Amino acid sequence: MIHITFPDGSVREFPEGVTGFQIAESISPRLAADVLAVGVDGVTYDLSRPIEQDASIQLYKWDDAEGKHAYWHSSAHLMAEALQALYPGIKFGIGPAIENGFYYDVDPGEAVIKESDLPAIESKMIELAARKESIVRKEVSKEEALNFFGQKGDEYKVELISDLADGTISFYSQGDFTDLCRGPHLQNTGEIKAIKLLSVAGAYWRGDEKRKQLTRIYGITFPKKKMLDEYLTFLEEAKKRDHRKVGKELELFTFSPAVGAGLPLWLPKGTILRTRLEEFLKRIQKRFGYQQVITPHIGQKELWVTSGHYAKYGKDSFQPIHTPQEGEEFLLKPMNCPHHCEIYRSSPHSYKDLPLRYAEFGTVYRYEQSGELHGLTRVRGFTQDDAHIFCRPDQLKDEFLKVMDIIFIIFNALDFKNFEAQISLRDPNDKEKYIGSDENWEKAERAIVEACEEKGLKANVELGEAAFYGPKLDFMVKDAIGRRWQLGTIQVDYNLPERFDLEYTGADNQKHRPVMIHRAPFGSMERFVAVLIEHTGGKFPLWLTPEQAVILPISEKFNEYAHQIAQQLDLLDIRVSVDDRNEKIGRKIRDNELKRIPYLLIVGEKEMEAGMVSVRKQGEGDKGTQSVDDFANAINAEVEKMMKAM
Amino acid sequence: MIHITFPDGSVREFPEGVTGFQIAESISPRLAADVLAVGVDGVTYDLSRPIEQDASIQLYKWDDAEGKHAYWHSSAHLMAEALQALYPGIKFGIGPAIENGFYYDVDPGEAVIKESDLPAIESKMIELAARKESIVRKEVSKEEALNFFGQKGDEYKVELISDLADGTISFYSQGDFTDLCRGPHLQNTGEIKAIKLLSVAGAYWRGDEKRKQLTRIYGITFPKKKMLDEYLTFLEEAKKRDHRKVGKELELFTFSPAVGAGLPLWLPKGTILRTRLEEFLKRIQKRFGYQQVITPHIGQKELWVTSGHYAKYGKDSFQPIHTPQEGEEFLLKPMNCPHHCEIYRSSPHSYKDLPLRYAEFGTVYRYEQSGELHGLTRVRGFTQDDAHIFCRPDQLKDEFLKVMDIIFIIFNALDFKNFEAQISLRDPNDKEKYIGSDENWEKAERAIVEACEEKGLKANVELGEAAFYGPKLDFMVKDAIGRRWQLGTIQVDYNLPERFDLEYTGADNQKHRPVMIHRAPFGSMERFVAVLIEHTGGKFPLWLTPEQAVILPISEKFNEYAHQIAQQLDLLDIRVSVDDRNEKIGRKIRDNELKRIPYLLIVGEKEMEAGMVSVRKQGEGDKGTQSVDDFANAINAEVEKMMKAM
Repeated sequence: MIHITFPDGSVREFPEGVTGFQIAESISPRLAADVLAVGVDGVTYDLSRPIEQDASIQLYKWDDAEGKHAYWHSSAHLMAEALQALYPGIKFGIGPAIENGFYYDVDPGEAVIKESDLPAIESKMIELAARKESIVRKEVSKEEALNFFGQKGDEYKVELISDLADGTISFYSQGDFTDLCRGPHLQNTGEIKAIKLLSVAGAYWRGDEKRKQLTRIYGITFPKKKMLDEYLTFLEEAKKRDHRKVGKELELFTFSPAVGAGLPLWLPKGTILRTRLEEFLKRIQKRFGYQQVITPHIGQKELWVTSGHYAKYGKDSFQPIHTPQEGEEFLLKPMNCPHHCEIYRSSPHSYKDLPLRYAEFGTVYRYEQSGELHGLTRVRGFTQDDAHIFCRPDQLKDEFLKVMDIIFIIFNALDFKNFEAQISLRDPNDKEKYIGSDENWEKAERAIVEACEEKGLKANVELGEAAFYGPKLDFMVKDAIGRRWQLGTIQVDYNLPERFDLEYTGADNQKHRPVMIHRAPFGSMERFVAVLIEHTGGKFPLWLTPEQAVILPISEKFNEYAHQIAQQLDLLDIRVSVDDRNEKIGRKIRDNELKRIPYLLIVGEKEMEAGMVSVRKQGEGDKGTQSVDDFANAINAEVEKMMKAM
Repeated sequence: MIHITFPDGSVREFPEGVTGFQIAESISPRLAADVLAVGVDGVTYDLSRPIEQDASIQLYKWDDAEGKHAYWHSSAHLMAEALQALYPGIKFGIGPAIENGFYYDVDPGEAVIKESDLPAIESKMIELAARKESIVRKEVSKEEALNFFGQKGDEYKVELISDLADGTISFYSQGDFTDLCRGPHLQNTGEIKAIKLLSVAGAYWRGDEKRKQLTRIYGITFPKKKMLDEYLTFLEEAKKRDHRKVGKELELFTFSPAVGAGLPLWLPKGTILRTRLEEFLKRIQKRFGYQQVITPHIGQKELWVTSGHYAKYGKDSFQPIHTPQEGEEFLLKPMNCPHHCEIYRSSPHSYKDLPLRYAEFGTVYRYEQSGELHGLTRVRGFTQDDAHIFCRPDQLKDEFLKVMDIIFIIFNALDFKNFEAQISLRDPNDKEKYIGSDENWEKAERAIVEACEEKGLKANVELGEAAFYGPKLDFMVKDAIGRRWQLGTIQVDYNLPERFDLEYTGADNQKHRPVMIHRAPFGSMERFVAVLIEHTGGKFPLWLTPEQAVILPISEKFNEYAHQIAQQLDLLDIRVSVDDRNEKIGRKIRDNELKRIPYLLIVGEKEMEAGMVSVRKQGEGDKGTQSVDDFANAINAEVEKMMKAM
């Protein structure tokens, strides 16, 4: 008999060689039906794999990442089995589970696999799954493994095996299909119920563009049809909200190959949106005692040698800028902190002057590989809504509370109702690797934890996740369709004040080091606008949207009147345009609804004679006729109400 | 007899060998007293130099640059004569007239010349001038010249003569002093009446830091004592207004050696000032149909190869930025135009969409030698209030008129009452060197001239001063103490639309090239703020000033009340601070008046009890007691009135 310890600490005896599945069955048939894999002393096992000695175990279901992983990994094998049946002689590269589903890289030889072939492969997978074939693990020697795939003629697997260390190698088989695999897997293919193959792409063998391009097939599976349907709806919705697509439709930003990848050009409407966000934050920050500053986008290389960033990131970054004068070297700034430290240093400070809060919408440049760039979320140049707070250690908690207030105002204003936080603290067993005194660390960590408690914020505490220079607090938001985004960081820093020799004169007339807090509630304007687009689908709140209304003359006869009204509304601070294209009114309404403009103002004979507009509200339809002034006042009142509530 | 032609075209006969002075005498004794030099067929002569053949002449007086030049050049010689008398064996480098006065670089051997020695030198100059020594021109051979200075032991002059081409060399003498000089000079030293030596500095011989450092003595002279006094007052005033000094006093900006020379850091108050200016211009531009855009501060090098700038300026600029990925090269942008061209290119345009006006406060980086940097007027990074108008050729004049309107609104708002313009057109005799069709040039030049006429703008037309890619209009303003600054340019461009292949579809359904207008009313935020500081001496208008009021509690007892009021005023949009230092009220008043804050609000027992403030207006003194609301309303009304007038 062996002793099995459960997560709740309870211990039970089982015969040696018991499997995870048997343990689950011993608890309840329901659990046995739901369990997908088992963690044994921290290693994930197949449910059917015998447990040979005392162990702590954890039973993984669908909601656990480990459960999904086994499910999707087995699904990849099922797809491979189907492909082997449909494309005899097909060779296999790697086929992992990924964040959402799985893929397999395959070499179908002379055959070509296209998107249009996916339904047939799906059908074959369903047919094979219906056979409920057991998935069997087998341990073989490296030589046996090489022999097996050598005979099969699969040079990719042979190469993979050759690269493995000597020793035992595991194979997994189901029906006619055998794969080299570390596992874990489901017990049998019948557990795979709902199947969708999503796309086909090219992928170089081992990511090396000098080697053969294989065919990568992406898919996803679920234990229930309903879950697949929900996922496909989600995918559809995510596609509709893709900020690259919406950004183009709403003419918010563009990229130019001539300017360079990852360097967004903000178009007029995007600039309004971004500027509105910046002004919104500036207004809040002013209320909280921040001072705006402006610093250059370059600085002498030495500045980042001092900060320590050059030694750490220099090689992988934009390289130094030389000048015709010898001995000068500048860097594009990858962050604003050293510049703000220099502002702090430009005059002496007393303890009475602190905290000082320098804020800047500072554009920074960080080099990313071109393959890693993605819309506005992964760029090479971006504008941080940056600020650095220089304060005394005893002011830390209060400053944390204030930064949290700002973040909550923003989340609330932009309708992010669902968010949580992570507190990253020191590793208590390895205190030496952190800079700053023990006393200050304790003070700062306590300040963060207490600040979260006072605000009633749900926060996970992660030990050992702090940067070497200070603890931090990160915010995660869930968007309208449930995706999680990291937004907003508050980071304590004991390092830069030291490196830049920052000081203030205390009440004791001695020199002291201030503490620095880095914080960026949006993170960056680029990333935040991307998240906001994906969250709202481009239907921005009225106070923020670049175009609040568009005037649609029902024929060219009323274009002049439309432009007159536009001017009138513009003077009343309404962001308005005129669609004076020579198109039918129905077409104009459709086109402008697609542009997510909140109000459509239709003008024809009747409206012109009365000096009115017919108001149509996005998503609500006809709202009747109003005078221009009444309309403007209503809009402005609505915006003002929103602003006051913030 | 020879024929002398006067500027008005009249011709008179004079004996061969007549001098400029004799010609002036023949016209009037007054003229003879005022004339300082004479232009003979475009070459400036001494008044006493014989004119040997028919010539067109121009008599130069003090108000002519050529007249002043002769006057100051002779003054440099007079100073040298005095130095020779006071410092026997002194050797001379060069001693030119400059924009304001003159200098001489000298090597006094063992002696040292300090600022405190200047009065003695001045006295000697006055003594020598009183002798009214004739200044005599003499032509000698190169050999004679080398002999003369060789015997004197003046190696600097020997070196200068050695470098001259063979041929006749001119000497100028007065009393015991003889100098190598091309002239022209005054007739005698007695004409120099009012003398001031200004400063002493070090200067490397021939500007080469590897050679000997000479002593440079700066001075200025005038024909009347009153003119000198006025100039010295002006100098004093200019010193007080020096934007580097005022910028420091008002805490507007700073420079950090660690960030780098010529890279300003805008401090909180400077940032408010700059942001107010930007918002002011944005508001005007919105009214005129501009659209703000935002573009990155770097771009691929190719972008400036396309624009032609790289070939022209690449070598002398910030060098390309390399990346870890091979083959990529970026440049810090030295101008925003290529980025705006790429925005234009990002979507198709019809003739109906034009003009398009893209505006950006775009920060650009241009390399300047460190020796050429000066405060905010000559920097390495600056933010242009840039815009590019893309229009049809037939829209040029209208767009010019609109840009001029914007410029006039700005000049008016900032109290630049005195300005003029220069129109730079093609050289009509060398049309080949310009890009763009003859028809378009004529259209553009006519548009500019007509626009100036319609606006009643005083403009000098300069032929041949246009850029190769288009004609332009420049504005010069006079500041409060009479200095001229170049501000604001409107430049037509046929080149970039060609190079970036910009198009629009005409009414004829054919592709056409738009014309581009570059324009920057401020020029750059840095330079404009510098000019504004020097113009106002730091006393900014109420709508613009970073701090509208400061609250001065008469003792610490009233600090809390002061902060309460500050919060109240802040909510009413007044830019206010509290001076809660533990200082006497008199000291606080003086300090804050020095900071040019328009309103000082004094609070003590009486004010606190009544809930009031005692108002003191900068330059006007006590204004009595007011409630906080009344004060705020009055300020806001004053600002609003100013803004409405713009």
